[in-house]
Amino acid sequence: MLKKVLIANRGEIAVRVIRACRELGIETVAVYSTADEEALHVRLADEAYCIGPVSSADSYLNFTNVMSAATLTQSDGIHPGYGFLSENPDFAEICAACNIKFIGPSPEAISRMGTKDVARKTMDEAGVPVVPGSDGLVAGPEEGARTAEEIGYPVIIKATAGGGGKGIRVARNEEELKKGISITQQEARANFGNEGVYLEKYIEDFRHVEIQVLADSYGHVIHLGERDCSIQRRLQKLVEETPSPAISPEMRRQMGEAAVRAAEAVNYEGAGTVEFIFDHVNQTFYFMEMNTRIQVEHPVTEMVTGVDLIKEQLKIASGERLELKQEDIRFQGWSIECRINAEDPFKQFMPSPGRIGFYLPPGGPGVRVDSAAYPDYMISPYYDSMVAKLIVHAPTRAEAVSKMERALSEFLVEGVKTTIPFHQRLFEHDVFRSGDFNTKFLELYPIEEKGEQS
Amino acid sequence: MLKKVLIANRGEIAVRVIRACRELGIETVAVYSTADEEALHVRLADEAYCIGPVSSADSYLNFTNVMSAATLTQSDGIHPGYGFLSENPDFAEICAACNIKFIGPSPEAISRMGTKDVARKTMDEAGVPVVPGSDGLVAGPEEGARTAEEIGYPVIIKATAGGGGKGIRVARNEEELKKGISITQQEARANFGNEGVYLEKYIEDFRHVEIQVLADSYGHVIHLGERDCSIQRRLQKLVEETPSPAISPEMRRQMGEAAVRAAEAVNYEGAGTVEFIFDHVNQTFYFMEMNTRIQVEHPVTEMVTGVDLIKEQLKIASGERLELKQEDIRFQGWSIECRINAEDPFKQFMPSPGRIGFYLPPGGPGVRVDSAAYPDYMISPYYDSMVAKLIVHAPTRAEAVSKMERALSEFLVEGVKTTIPFHQRLFEHDVFRSGDFNTKFLELYPIEEKGEQS
Repeated sequence: MLKKVLIANRGEIAVRVIRACRELGIETVAVYSTADEEALHVRLADEAYCIGPVSSADSYLNFTNVMSAATLTQSDGIHPGYGFLSENPDFAEICAACNIKFIGPSPEAISRMGTKDVARKTMDEAGVPVVPGSDGLVAGPEEGARTAEEIGYPVIIKATAGGGGKGIRVARNEEELKKGISITQQEARANFGNEGVYLEKYIEDFRHVEIQVLADSYGHVIHLGERDCSIQRRLQKLVEETPSPAISPEMRRQMGEAAVRAAEAVNYEGAGTVEFIFDHVNQTFYFMEMNTRIQVEHPVTEMVTGVDLIKEQLKIASGERLELKQEDIRFQGWSIECRINAEDPFKQFMPSPGRIGFYLPPGGPGVRVDSAAYPDYMISPYYDSMVAKLIVHAPTRAEAVSKMERALSEFLVEGVKTTIPFHQRLFEHDVFRSGDFNTKFLELYPIEEKGEQS
Repeated sequence: MLKKVLIANRGEIAVRVIRACRELGIETVAVYSTADEEALHVRLADEAYCIGPVSSADSYLNFTNVMSAATLTQSDGIHPGYGFLSENPDFAEICAACNIKFIGPSPEAISRMGTKDVARKTMDEAGVPVVPGSDGLVAGPEEGARTAEEIGYPVIIKATAGGGGKGIRVARNEEELKKGISITQQEARANFGNEGVYLEKYIEDFRHVEIQVLADSYGHVIHLGERDCSIQRRLQKLVEETPSPAISPEMRRQMGEAAVRAAEAVNYEGAGTVEFIFDHVNQTFYFMEMNTRIQVEHPVTEMVTGVDLIKEQLKIASGERLELKQEDIRFQGWSIECRINAEDPFKQFMPSPGRIGFYLPPGGPGVRVDSAAYPDYMISPYYDSMVAKLIVHAPTRAEAVSKMERALSEFLVEGVKTTIPFHQRLFEHDVFRSGDFNTKFLELYPIEEKGEQS
């Protein structure tokens, strides 16, 4: 087993990793920026070292400073958490060069999954369904029209060099398509100096369903079921749950097997998540991307399976074989997570950093709080605005919803605005309660401040 | 379903009941003494009424004040929690007379189980093993010696009018017995004016093992396995766990069936606990007593069964049939509870009331905190000294022990002395960790302050 792990992260995930290490008897090293001197992960770790100023680039993202701390403390492993260095193949490479175990997959696996076109090709070859599309670039409107006919409308025209919402156009028929290709090519040439465009089927009505996988270093891969993260705002997940209200046992089996194939295709190691577009109307699914790290929403999977994913990461990184077999994984009850952020949910989720005054998380049966906050804690404007992840577990979805409402009602965070009132309104919403929604839920049903909703 | 429930209690159990009611959509009424104006149960309930001064006799135990609050608020149920009015048959009677549902068994069931000799007789007739003893009083040394021979030494000589540790004597052979009966009779005549004595087998080496039962008002009774509460100080439980490290599946079945017979014998309704002396050397068990209420340590049962016992109480009191059948009850993993009290564990557990300053309960996976404390909360000297119940749940006992150690290490309560350091020392103890101990553990292995243990 690893002896000493440096946690190259901050906030709740750093606390989460320290907890798992402590339960396994692994020593912990926290690193922190000057803004985080009083942070909970600093208090809870066995050792803690300042690695730079508030700017992430100069502290949490600074290879040299992180590696120096790891070397000086004789850490034999580094847990990157999520964000920061967690999906950086160069960092994983440097860890390997320094003979310190990067707790995650190989640099090659990170790279292949981190590059969209390579990932798409790898998945296609591994028999994981990808969104139907053109085989590479389309030459122009005429060829595009023939391809679009094969794919079926609506299609999405994407500039290969585009990004950030630019160079993307939806076409619902041949006329729109031909015109769209011409305009997108022109725009792309003007904006990106590269007129290449390709086509993909446009799936409008889908749920975000992802599969958690675990893979040891001996090629043994299992999946731990799905998480439904369809409640999103600008691709930012706000609520996650498992099981998905839209997934049948047979669909779970199919998606699970596809996720296992995806992991196998890149010789994956550790915990990872394969994200799918789940077309619930046609009961089909397509590979979206694989996140080669632990995810924010991992606790809901832990609640229903009883498996501690961080401990599994640590055991796998220590060279242990997965003890769990696919048939050992049983799903019990329903779990939902709300991300409680220091943001004003009724003012475009504007961050609301500042000093928390009174702080009292909810408790009692079936309630879990993963947080780095405490009374009088200063929420820094420099990093993400998370206050806590509030997770509930109950026998059924209806009971989990009631439990979340109860827990939200007793969660007291003073001094900063939080998304608690947003979640309270959301959980009252009939469509949310029905479980029948897609990723456009918040566009279709904007959640407004109490008393202001029409 | 009940519409509005008054909680005739305070502290963590009042908060626990409010949480269950809220999740079931039942309105809640808190009552409080003037010492509890700022208490969490007062904050969390839908309504709250002061029912008297600090003295429990004049507030939480005052029938008239409690019933007035219930009547004025049109509550249709009263949850008594534990302690206070929870095992008072007269109070249950008054509730019935006022047409307010007492959430618990009938006054008759409370009475029969609350009177030791009646309970013993009832259990014996129901086929629940009771400690072997004389059939009523013994006339004198000669008759006593014949009876003791049948029971087997050691035996305990008890003055029928004795109590509080007086009028009790252990005899390990015939000589000690004859002498002991004479002396005990003399003492009893002098002290209690009644020389009657009886004999019971003296079980020295036993574990406290209790069985949780649930019974609906239609005669359907199930059990939810055992709790081992052998870590006690002066009959005060300090740590409880389930499963018991000493109980086999076959023994669990036998004890469970005996507990169900015990409940059936008094037409029990609601949640109750049958406490047994478990003679682990001879693998036999004897009825100790039945507690006709919810118990402090109920959460460990909830963790391994997934059943919310307070919700079950509320549903049963609402006249619902138990949905659970015996075969539905599955036990998953291991759960341990530590009672965190505001006491100085290294000074005879002397109460340490006062104002809590900084307060941060532990969180993360498998950790549950049931508490009414919060930052700056005043722990009153007038009531019990509980700060929190810390409950963990993990796949195995070893993992649950590690998790408890981790959770204890991050539980921050400033301003008062607590039993946290005691629990930390206890959980380090090899004998505790082995699981092989009896109710004399703390006599045999006194837990001393760090650095002072020999």
